[in-house]
Amino acid sequence: MEQASLGDVSTPGRVAADGEGISAAELGLAARNHGLPLEALRYEVTPPGLHYVLVHYDIPAADADDWRLDVGGRVRTPLSLDLAALAGLPAVTRRVTMECAGNGRARLSPRPVSQPWLVEAVGTADWTGVPLHLVLEAAGVAPDAVEAVFTGADHGVERGVEQDYRRSLPLPVAPDALLAYAMNGRPLPPQHGYPLRLVVPGWYGMAHVKWLREITLVDAPFTGFQQAVAYRVRQDPGEDGKPVTRIAPRALMIPPGFPDFMSRTRVVRPGPVRPAGRAWSGYGPVVRVEFSADGGGSWADAEVEPQGLHAWAWQGWQADWVAEPGRHVLAVRATDAAGHTQPLEQAWNLGGFRNNQVQVVDVLCCPA
Amino acid sequence: MEQASLGDVSTPGRVAADGEGISAAELGLAARNHGLPLEALRYEVTPPGLHYVLVHYDIPAADADDWRLDVGGRVRTPLSLDLAALAGLPAVTRRVTMECAGNGRARLSPRPVSQPWLVEAVGTADWTGVPLHLVLEAAGVAPDAVEAVFTGADHGVERGVEQDYRRSLPLPVAPDALLAYAMNGRPLPPQHGYPLRLVVPGWYGMAHVKWLREITLVDAPFTGFQQAVAYRVRQDPGEDGKPVTRIAPRALMIPPGFPDFMSRTRVVRPGPVRPAGRAWSGYGPVVRVEFSADGGGSWADAEVEPQGLHAWAWQGWQADWVAEPGRHVLAVRATDAAGHTQPLEQAWNLGGFRNNQVQVVDVLCCPA
Repeated sequence: MEQASLGDVSTPGRVAADGEGISAAELGLAARNHGLPLEALRYEVTPPGLHYVLVHYDIPAADADDWRLDVGGRVRTPLSLDLAALAGLPAVTRRVTMECAGNGRARLSPRPVSQPWLVEAVGTADWTGVPLHLVLEAAGVAPDAVEAVFTGADHGVERGVEQDYRRSLPLPVAPDALLAYAMNGRPLPPQHGYPLRLVVPGWYGMAHVKWLREITLVDAPFTGFQQAVAYRVRQDPGEDGKPVTRIAPRALMIPPGFPDFMSRTRVVRPGPVRPAGRAWSGYGPVVRVEFSADGGGSWADAEVEPQGLHAWAWQGWQADWVAEPGRHVLAVRATDAAGHTQPLEQAWNLGGFRNNQVQVVDVLCCPA
Repeated sequence: MEQASLGDVSTPGRVAADGEGISAAELGLAARNHGLPLEALRYEVTPPGLHYVLVHYDIPAADADDWRLDVGGRVRTPLSLDLAALAGLPAVTRRVTMECAGNGRARLSPRPVSQPWLVEAVGTADWTGVPLHLVLEAAGVAPDAVEAVFTGADHGVERGVEQDYRRSLPLPVAPDALLAYAMNGRPLPPQHGYPLRLVVPGWYGMAHVKWLREITLVDAPFTGFQQAVAYRVRQDPGEDGKPVTRIAPRALMIPPGFPDFMSRTRVVRPGPVRPAGRAWSGYGPVVRVEFSADGGGSWADAEVEPQGLHAWAWQGWQADWVAEPGRHVLAVRATDAAGHTQPLEQAWNLGGFRNNQVQVVDVLCCPA
């Protein structure tokens, strides 16, 4: 028999053919991973089972008693910390809105074939853990170190490459980054990285390495798969592309009224409606949210909550609308303090990353 | 303008055309609802965020302080119970394996267009609450009552019919049915019915009405949408069909080795492998699990855990297999005490219910 190889079961990335429906493989990912049901935007802190989840390989079977975080590479003193040692260090809690870098991918045309998110790959949690810089300072970062590489316990094959999930951050690392061991005041759920994960406020989800077991300081930029091959914005497979980093601004709406089971079209009664939702950006506070009841033809400013204590969490917004019988297309768009605004038409890229096209919500208004 | 109506946004059920990929509407359901990532079969009790979830409409915004369960209709004494009153009644905890009646639907051909489950719509939890019969006895069931109708707070449109989610059970009700207010020792998560749900051990998920607010005893069989239109096994839309009730037997495997990200094909090393998983049936204990390493060509008995204390929970199983380089198709099938065995080929029905075709798992064995 011819020798079977990884290339037989793990094929290069591709875009769907014109008119090609979602494939069985994409559906397999959609059935495992899940988004935030949009009505759960009502919760300022997302209950864990409603927070979006994207797991590249399998959720590892982790034993907290045996867990160690090794810190090595270009450091003065390599460390090997168990969870008790981490729990003994000063802890902080940060409320962070996290979004998958591929959110919105399934609406692109042509569609990059991967996890087929529509718009719902987001969630907000209170993460508790040790500020990352404390551990790096304890290890003593060598003067020639330029990045920290984070390795998770999840192992698999991707586009023909067998790997542990691994990503880097430039030094000095984001001052708000955390080695988190609790979510909403309880140990991390298995799918969110139990017993230890990285949290990098303001960055897309791929940076928040779950099941974290190793930090390695390196003297040259990391070129592993998830850094140099995946999670790049490019038009063409031959390009280097630009790295995916911070979250582009987005506003989402709690769908008003009630839904049709299959189409998810919303039904409302005639009269005043108070559309509301949340908005966020990885580039700083959201300073403006606009609401449209005619699919983006005209816009009116919504009320936006000030950012308050939580620099990296979404902000609530509310608008006014009087529903009249008929069909309507609602839309909402956010602008952040850095001046980024959500686009009406999505610029395309090969991996389907960093989408933040304005959300539209189909509504039927009819009497009871 | 022509009057817009529910029929404009809520269309009859249909089956997909030959070769039609998963539609945007089906993907919308797959992104909201989610299955058990199959590696989570390793947990005897499923952590809540990994347990399958199917929500027909929206997760209601429930206030436990104001919640009331009203018991009325053909009873001697109508009751209106708040959660404190329910918590004051004798409580029991039951470990229950729950499966969606539409599990496996997306593998049918032609495919009924609805929530597109592959095989993963299952989970097991410890549910705590009041035995249903205690509350019915307190209300005093009238001699002419034949069914109890359960109404949830979730409201929506389905196939053109506006409705609260509502299902009935025949009287006397299943002696193991519970009015559950806790899951795995904590208040129900929002998506699992907070603050109160019905749990009907051995029945498919549609019977376990979430966000339960009303029980009505009736003197004629209930003919509401979810009883008489949906959740029927039929070949043709004109048929009455047979009601979906108890869970057909099924075994699932913890996928061995590690996965390819996109295809989910498993990779294992040459040598001994110990395939394992869980098996269950709503008709009683699983008495036999068979394992096949050649896609169902030949079968060998696996070891099955005895059912033990939990009459309605899945049972563990383990098999032996020595992997040799090449591609393999593993399969597993369960037989229950009532003599039902999983089929190799799935019989088709219009709604895609009660599927329990044997699971097959593609494996590539290659050296490290």
